[in-house]
Amino acid sequence: MHLLVSYDIKLPKRLRKVHRTMLAYGRPLQYSVFECALKPAQLEALRHELAALIDHEEDSVLILSFGPTCITLGCRPPLLAQPHLFLD
Amino acid sequence: MHLLVSYDIKLPKRLRKVHRTMLAYGRPLQYSVFECALKPAQLEALRHELAALIDHEEDSVLILSFGPTCITLGCRPPLLAQPHLFLD
Repeated sequence: MHLLVSYDIKLPKRLRKVHRTMLAYGRPLQYSVFECALKPAQLEALRHELAALIDHEEDSVLILSFGPTCITLGCRPPLLAQPHLFLD
Repeated sequence: MHLLVSYDIKLPKRLRKVHRTMLAYGRPLQYSVFECALKPAQLEALRHELAALIDHEEDSVLILSFGPTCITLGCRPPLLAQPHLFLD
């Protein structure tokens, strides 16, 4: 699965831990936004690791599979999966 | 189309302009991440507005349609479209 993980973590200490965890699963696209190519079992492992790290009242994480439309503007980070519709 | 727009804008001045533009098209999910429900013509208009605002060497914008998997952890922002798979 080609996934986007974006997160909003309140405390810097937790943010660093989440960032380090994400580096083991994917590639930073933007600040607090990662791109991952994961098997279902890896996605489950990531979800549990993140759920254990964050404060469920203050922080939020969104894990989203890439849909058919993917448009990038500006400095274009190469995406992992099959070519998408790139418009600039 | 149910879309996620995430952006990384270097200068605060441009960031404010992009944020104000996005408020006219969607709803903030996280810092620099918006959720939008747009028709193709609205998507085109948004793309052109953002392309005119950003610095194409320093800034990046990703516009992504929601795929079938959508997992949210932590403080769960209500999503616009039909119910997705919400795991917490």
